[in-house]
Parts: sequence; C-alpha cells; structure tokens
Amino acid sequence: MSTRPSRDLQTFDNPNPERDYEVRFETSEFTCVCPLTGQPDFATLRIRYVPDATCVELKSLKLYLWSFRDQGHFHEAVTNRILTDLVELLAPRSLTVEGSFNIRGGIATTVVASHP
Amino acid sequence: MSTRPSRDLQTFDNPNPERDYEVRFETSEFTCVCPLTGQPDFATLRIRYVPDATCVELKSLKLYLWSFRDQGHFHEAVTNRILTDLVELLAPRSLTVEGSFNIRGGIATTVVASHP
Amino acid sequence: MSTRPSRDLQTFDNPNPERDYEVRFETSEFTCVCPLTGQPDFATLRIRYVPDATCVELKSLKLYLWSFRDQGHFHEAVTNRILTDLVELLAPRSLTVEGSFNIRGGIATTVVASHP
Amino acid sequence: MSTRPSRDLQTFDNPNPERDYEVRFETSEFTCVCPLTGQPDFATLRIRYVPDATCVELKSLKLYLWSFRDQGHFHEAVTNRILTDLVELLAPRSLTVEGSFNIRGGIATTVVASHP
Amino acid sequence: MSTRPSRDLQTFDNPNPERDYEVRFETSEFTCVCPLTGQPDFATLRIRYVPDATCVELKSLKLYLWSFRDQGHFHEAVTNRILTDLVELLAPRSLTVEGSFNIRGGIATTVVASHP
Amino acid sequence: MSTRPSRDLQTFDNPNPERDYEVRFETSEFTCVCPLTGQPDFATLRIRYVPDATCVELKSLKLYLWSFRDQGHFHEAVTNRILTDLVELLAPRSLTVEGSFNIRGGIATTVVASHP
Amino acid sequence: MSTRPSRDLQTFDNPNPERDYEVRFETSEFTCVCPLTGQPDFATLRIRYVPDATCVELKSLKLYLWSFRDQGHFHEAVTNRILTDLVELLAPRSLTVEGSFNIRGGIATTVVASHP
Amino acid sequence: MSTRPSRDLQTFDNPNPERDYEVRFETSEFTCVCPLTGQPDFATLRIRYVPDATCVELKSLKLYLWSFRDQGHFHEAVTNRILTDLVELLAPRSLTVEGSFNIRGGIATTVVASHP
Amino acid sequence: MSTRPSRDLQTFDNPNPERDYEVRFETSEFTCVCPLTGQPDFATLRIRYVPDATCVELKSLKLYLWSFRDQGHFHEAVTNRILTDLVELLAPRSLTVEGSFNIRGGIATTVVASHP
Amino acid sequence: MSTRPSRDLQTFDNPNPERDYEVRFETSEFTCVCPLTGQPDFATLRIRYVPDATCVELKSLKLYLWSFRDQGHFHEAVTNRILTDLVELLAPRSLTVEGSFNIRGGIATTVVASHP
Repeated sequence: MSTRPSRDLQTFDNPNPERDYEVRFETSEFTCVCPLTGQPDFATLRIRYVPDATCVELKSLKLYLWSFRDQGHFHEAVTNRILTDLVELLAPRSLTVEGSFNIRGGIATTVVASHP
Repeated sequence: MSTRPSRDLQTFDNPNPERDYEVRFETSEFTCVCPLTGQPDFATLRIRYVPDATCVELKSLKLYLWSFRDQGHFHEAVTNRILTDLVELLAPRSLTVEGSFNIRGGIATTVVASHP
Repeated sequence: MSTRPSRDLQTFDNPNPERDYEVRFETSEFTCVCPLTGQPDFATLRIRYVPDATCVELKSLKLYLWSFRDQGHFHEAVTNRILTDLVELLAPRSLTVEGSFNIRGGIATTVVASHP
Repeated sequence: MSTRPSRDLQTFDNPNPERDYEVRFETSEFTCVCPLTGQPDFATLRIRYVPDATCVELKSLKLYLWSFRDQGHFHEAVTNRILTDLVELLAPRSLTVEGSFNIRGGIATTVVASHP
Repeated sequence: MSTRPSRDLQTFDNPNPERDYEVRFETSEFTCVCPLTGQPDFATLRIRYVPDATCVELKSLKLYLWSFRDQGHFHEAVTNRILTDLVELLAPRSLTVEGSFNIRGGIATTVVASHP
Repeated sequence: MSTRPSRDLQTFDNPNPERDYEVRFETSEFTCVCPLTGQPDFATLRIRYVPDATCVELKSLKLYLWSFRDQGHFHEAVTNRILTDLVELLAPRSLTVEGSFNIRGGIATTVVASHP
Repeated sequence: MSTRPSRDLQTFDNPNPERDYEVRFETSEFTCVCPLTGQPDFATLRIRYVPDATCVELKSLKLYLWSFRDQGHFHEAVTNRILTDLVELLAPRSLTVEGSFNIRGGIATTVVASHP
Repeated sequence: MSTRPSRDLQTFDNPNPERDYEVRFETSEFTCVCPLTGQPDFATLRIRYVPDATCVELKSLKLYLWSFRDQGHFHEAVTNRILTDLVELLAPRSLTVEGSFNIRGGIATTVVASHP
Repeated sequence: MSTRPSRDLQTFDNPNPERDYEVRFETSEFTCVCPLTGQPDFATLRIRYVPDATCVELKSLKLYLWSFRDQGHFHEAVTNRILTDLVELLAPRSLTVEGSFNIRGGIATTVVASHP
Repeated sequence: MSTRPSRDLQTFDNPNPERDYEVRFETSEFTCVCPLTGQPDFATLRIRYVPDATCVELKSLKLYLWSFRDQGHFHEAVTNRILTDLVELLAPRSLTVEGSFNIRGGIATTVVASHP
C-alpha cells in the first residue's frame, strides 16, 4: 500500500540566497491511511526551512501533500518521509517537519523531525 | 494496592534510526486511584521521546496507560514509574513524562520527569 | 455488566424553596466503561436543576458519579440514567444532564436530556 | 458560625430612573468558609440589576462582600442570601446573583438566583 | 463521480423513547472531493438529533462519513445529502447537520440544514 | 466638575433609510475621572444603533468620546449620558450603550442602557 | 470614485429547494478605500442566506468581493450595497451581510444589514 | 499583624531521589490581608521544585497556604516568605515561588523568587 | 508640552536583599497624548525588575503613571523615560519597561527597553 | 508589475541612542498581489528592530506598506524586500520582518528574515 507519492515538487530560485531566512508552512488538511486498519488518519502539518539555492513552490507542495491521501503510512514514518523528500529536493540549510496527528484511542501523537 | 501494571507494551523498529527525531503523545484520559483515600485521580499525560532502535506501538501504549485505572499511586511516584517503564522498554535517546493532575483541595499538581 | 450504581445520594432541605433558582454542577472527571469493548470512556458532565423541597449534597453526588467507574454504559443510556436517578431523588422543578464524551473514532458525542 | 454580615451597604439616587437600564458587577474575590469543614471556599460572583429609585455604591458593595470572609455558608444559601440582602436594600426592578464556586471534589458548582 | 455512499448505517433501539433528548456528534475529519477540480475539501461536521424509535450507532456513523472520502460533492449538496440519509434512516423527531468547510479562495463556507 | 462635553458630533444622511440595519462601535479607549477621588477611570465602550434619517460620523464620535477625558462622571451616569446625547443627535430607531469599566476594588462594573 | 463593482456573480440551481437551509460565508480579506481620505479600509465580511431557486457560486463571490478593492465606500453604504446586490441576484428567502471593519481612530465599526 | 503562619507542613520520602524531576503546584485560592489597609489580597500561587530527600505532602501544603488568610503581608515579602519556609522544610535541589496578585489601582503585581 | 512628570515615587526597603527575585507590574491603564496631534494614546505597560536595596511602592507607582495623562510623548521616548526614572529611583539589579501602544493607522507599536 | 514602492519613509532621531532597545510594529492590513494570478494576497506583518541613530516614523511606515497594495510580489521576495528597504533606511543595530500570509490552497505561509 505504501507506494511512493508524487515527486512532482516544483522549485524556484531563492530570491535572497545571500541571507539566512526562514519559510514556514502550516496546513490542517493532511490525511493518509493507517497501514494496519485502512482507516483514514488526519494531521496538522508544519514545515519550516531555511532555503539555500532553491525554494519550494507552494502549489506543487499542496499537490505533493495531497498525494499521500490514499497511501498507508505510520505517523513516525510519514513525517520522516516528508523530511527526506524535501531535503532531497531543496538541499536546504535546515528543515523541520512536524506532524500533529488527531486523537486515536484517546491519544494525540506528534512527530517532529529535523535536518541536519 | 500498588501491584505492577500490565507490561504488554509493544514496540516496532524505528523506521529512521539514522536521525534524532521526537515523538510526543498526549492524553487527557489517564486515571488512577489515591493510595490513601481510594478516590479516583485524573491527569493529562504528556510523553515525548527520541527513539533509538525501537518505537512504542500506540495501541499497546493506550492499554498500558489503562492498566493504572484500578491501582493506587501517588502523583510523584506514578509519573516516575511510567518514565522507568518506558525507558526500560525503549532504551530511548531521551524521554520525558509529564503528568498534570486535576485540582485537589484547590491545588493542581504537575510532575515532570526526564531521562537521562 | 450494567448493574445499578450506588444510590446513596444525600439531600438537604432547600434553604429557599419560596424562589425558583438554578444550581449547576460541572465535572470533567466522569468515566465509565464501553459495554461492547470494555474500554474506558471519559466525559465532562454538566447537571443543572431548579430545586423544589430538597437539594443534592455535593459530596454524595461525587460518590454517586464515581460509582459508574466500573460499569458498562452506552452514552445515550448513561446520560438518561443519571437524569432519571436525580429526578427520582429530588423531584426537582426542572433538571438537565449533559454528557460530553471524549473523541472515539474521530467523533465527539454529547447527550443532553431534560426533565420535565 | 453563620452570623449576619455587615449591612452597611450604601446607596445613591438613580441618576436615570425614567429608563430601565442594567448594572452588572463581577468579582473573582468572593470567599467564605464551609460550615461543615471550616475550610475556605472561593467564588466568582456576578450581580446584575435594573435600578429603580436607588443604586448600590461600589465601595460599600466591596465591603459587604468582604464581610462574608469569615462566615460559614453553603453555596446555595449564600447566593440566595446576597440576593435577599440586595433586594431588601434596593427594591430593584430586577436583580440576579450568580455564584460560581471553585472545584471541590472534582466538581464546580454555580448557583443562580433572581428576583422577581 | 457522485455515486451513492455506503448506507450500512447501523441503529439501535432508543433506550429512552419516552423522553425528548438530544444527541450531538462533532468531527473535524470529514473530507470529500470538489466535483469541479477533483481537489480535496475538508470540513468540521456537526450533527444533532432528537431520536424517536432508534439511535444511530457511532462506529457505523464513522464509516458512513468516511465513505464520502473519494466522492465529488458540492458543499450545499453534501450537507443536505447527509441530512436526507440520516432522516431516512432514523425518522428522528428533529435533526440538524452543519458542515463548516475549510477556507477556499479566502472564504470559509458553512451550510446548516434541518429537519423538519 | 461635571460640565457638559463637546456636542460637536457630526452626522451624515443615512444611505439606506428604507431598511432597518444596525451599526456597532467598540472602543477600548474611553476614559474619564472619578468625581469623588479625581482618579482616572477606564472603560470599553460599545454603542449600537439602528439609524433613521441620519448616521453619526466616526471621527466626530471619536472626538466626542475624548471630550470626557477630563470630566468627572459616575459609571451609571456617564453611560446614560452618552445614550441621551446620541438619541438627541440621531433620533435613531433604537440605540444601546454599554460601558465596561475596569476593575476597582476587585470589582468590574458594566452598565447597559437602551432606547427606546 | 464609487462606480459600480463587477456584477459577474455566477449562480447555480439550489440542489434542495424543498427545504429551508442556511449557507454562511466568512472572509477576512475584504478591502476597499475610504472615499474621504483615499486610504485603505479592511473588514471581515460575513454573509448568510437561505437560498430559494439559486445559490451563489463561491469563486464568482470571491471575484465580486475583490472588485471593491479600488473603490471608495463608506462602511454603512458598502455593507448595504453588498446586501442589495446579492438580494437582486439570488432573490433569497433571507440574507444578512455583516461587515466588521478594522479599528480607525481607536474605534472598530460593524454594520449588519438584513433582507427582508 | 505578621505573626508566623502554621509550620505544620508534612513531608514524605522522595520515591525517586536518584533522579532530578520537577513537581509543580498551582492554586488560585491564595489570600492574605494588606498590612496597611487591612483589606484582603488575592493571588494565584505557583510553586515548583526539584525534590532531594523529601517531598511536601499536598494536604499539609493546602493547610499551610490557608494559614496566611488572616495575616498581613506585602506582596514581595509573602512570596519570599513561602520560598524561605519551603526551602527550610525540604532542602530541595531547587525551588521557585511565583505569586500573581490581583489588580489593585489598575495594576497587577507578580513576584517570582527562586532558590538557590 | 513635555514637562517632567511627578517624581513623587515612594520606595520601601527590599525585605529580601540577600536574594535575586523579580517583581512584575502590568497595567492596561496607561495613557498620554501624541505630541504632534494632541490626541490621546493608550498603552498596556509591563515593568519588571530585580530589586537591590529598595522596592517601588505600588500606590505611588500608580500616581506616577497617571502623571503622564496630560503630557505629550512619543512611544519610543516615553518608554525609555519611564525606564530612566525607575532606574534612577531604585538602582535595581535589572529593570525592563515594555509599552504596547494601541493601534494607530492600522499598526500596533510596542517598545521594550532594559537596564543594564 | 513589480515596480519599486514608494521610498518616502520618514525618520526621526533616536531619542535614546545610548541604550539598546527594541521597537515592534504589527499590522494585519498588509496586502499585495500574486505576480502569477493577479489575485490579492493578505498578510499580518511584524517588524522589530533595535534603532541606532534613527527611528522610522509611524505614519510614513503605514504609507510605505500601503504602497505594495497594487504590486505583484512572491511571499519570500516581498518579506526580504521590506527588510532590505528598512535596513537601508535605518542602518539599525538589528531588524526582523515576519510576514504571515493568509491560507492559499489550504496552506498558510510565514516568512521570517533578519538583519544582520
């Protein structure tokens, strides 16, 4: 069930590479599927990074995140996966992904992974 | 009254052991019993850890926390106990347990214990 | 599993029966057990009533609500059950019970029942 | 223990008796003593009224509410008592007293009494 | 794209049909697809009803709401559709569905439909 | 000390007199002086009205409210005074003034007066 | 300065005309220009209506609201204008427009107009 | 007026002295008396400490804090006094007391004192 | 317009000079006048300091802050001025003044100045 | 579309250059245009700086920010642009610009850039 999501992430040239600055994205619309039960999971996703040569284009980021909708992923793995994909794409100076998953069995789970 | 809770905590292999990342759990459904009065206590429990070789499985964590329901524990002791159990299970790179207990006698009590 | 909870609710004489006034109780510490799965359920309970001849004593109300801790009850039934018990005890001019149960399967359930 | 509080409430002439308007007071500094255990109770008190010929003077209201500090009162009785005292003093077109008492035994209690 | 969702909604006998009382459900995990663009939509769904002979079973309600995940629906139509399905199933004394859809083009849309 | 404030309130023609609609103003910048102690009082002021032939101009309303800055007024009187001034100016279909005065002696006071 | 905004509002057939239901829109992105000073004004706009034969299409509503960006309008007039435009377009069973304009001179202004 | 409060604070053996962990108490029910005016003062009190050999028992802490009810203390002095008393009792690894006193004369005062 | 405010600030001996501790004041009742337009400005003021030999007396601080009411001051200058006055008075171990001024022209301004 | 905005920013002499202190501005009224689609974008802008010889005058800052209203800018570029303009103007000891842009495609974007 865990096939690779769309990699059609687009980038554009960092308009200010001479300076360290941070870009943060937050969406409450991330959803994937539990690989054990097949039931939907929902999360608020926060991504922040310091761009180097390239920035990620917002619309393609939206499409990339949507591509997880029908895929089965554990909380820990999918958060790390998004980190790995974006680091590979952007070679950023730093990048953090935080996934705050909705309550299951009375417990809310958050996973925070950073590069480097 | 303070018999040992269920230790049937399950683990799975850390999918990204090459990286330090944090997993956080929060539940408002922790309850045990006051060892002096026999009356129920209620707490919001927050656990966060950096996994090493293994991660704790969410459903078994829920069952583990439920196993305290009929046991008598002081606030300070039960928070440390959960820390000790999880450290023994996971050998994590770091782990913190925070128990925020409901108001008794007009006073709310929070206990925060960390490893290492 | 659904045996009858403790009925040792205490009352005292309404100090101002010449006047309609409202008493409201709110507790976030109500817990019972799902009769299907045996798993704990948690709710915030709100009770409000206009006393007639008698008022319910606060400590006995606490003990009455704790008596549900090990009993199996559906959300709809237990809310109505508390309403019925308190109406039988107090013969109040009016009484409402609202049970707001924690999220299960991504859904929060609230039941509101009133007399008359 | 339940001796009568200071009645040195001051009034002044309603500056606009030709009009129905509402005056509301809110204080989080009401405290009295439990007549059973002798332990302090704390409440947020809300009073609102439509004055007729007279208004209550704010400083004397503060002193009146402070006079309960060392007296023993049940929640239901003290809320009705303040209502009765103020109605007797002001003969208002309407008056409501709401006492929201702090959590005891996991339960918060609010009493709301109105005249007429 | 707008094929009929799963109708495997389960019911159980109303435990207190002698009384009008209200059941409310709230979930932040409703998602369907825009029939024009194919892009996911997300909503918080609130359902409240007064049961007559039958109540809706919570787990089957969860599955019913999940069945919209891959279907194309306009905001106005899907909210009314859920109302129609539940009224047909339950023949309730009253029922309201409120869908609060996430911001699109800077605008948040809420649809509220009631029976009767 | 209680001389009459500036009456240089400006009006403009109601652009839609054929329709009942409401205009609401809210400011947290109202201040006057206690006529007994000479100490400053502060309030959040809320005004709402249904215009008839004329509307009040916003800048002149600001200047009118500032004119109270150095004047001595009791809470009840100043709220009614603003109501009277605006009713005299606008002959509105309805008008309400609410003054929420900051805590003095542990008590917050709100006065709400309406016309007609 | 106050030329007529784009009227290219699109509609679609009400999918459930047999039922009274409410549609609500909220956007924090409304901006126009002060006709006196030429300076930008900003508002949160809330629109709610009960459709009759037709519903307003969301994207065209967005474009319609954007068309005010460079136009000069007073708060009272522009809120009524949007009401008039939408009533003319939709002939709804009822419709309300609420414009909450940002603080100017320390005062926040809200205008609420309804049809019928 | 400033006689010494009850020192009947109880302790129990730290169950986990091998580990640095923090215990936090918070109560909104602290009250004492202004030594100048004799008027009641109210504060929210926050205490946090890292226990060494002993922990403070919760019920005796409640009684200790209640013992200030009729005593005259300045804000700065009483916060430091509680710190001194608890340090003397517990010889903790660290301890902080924060008293957030209610508004007097439009000003809220907070005092934060720490050991070592 | 910018004459010197009242310097009648009172002090009392620090009751615990052997210890570094912090005193914080917060008031939402600071007002002065714009030196350019003569229009009132409003701010929330936060002061925190570590006393050395002396503490500032609360009532005199209130009077000192009120003395700015009719004086013209720029945001940056008045915040620094209060810092300078209090440092001169108290010779504190450290002191910070934060002035959060209300929105003017759609922009809220905060100034934070510290000693040393 | 991306012509240079008005540079008519005004400054005044720093009244306290002998001291490092921070000035913060926050406005929810920043709007520009998407250079790809021509559609308006909205942001909350936060600027904070430690002045050296000069401070920026508030009214001219407002006009400067308004000058972006009809210009096309990407989120990353416009935030850096404002930083560059203000650094060039003020030669501040430090300066940070944070732009929090409204949700587009379900994603909110924040850009934070600092000097040096």
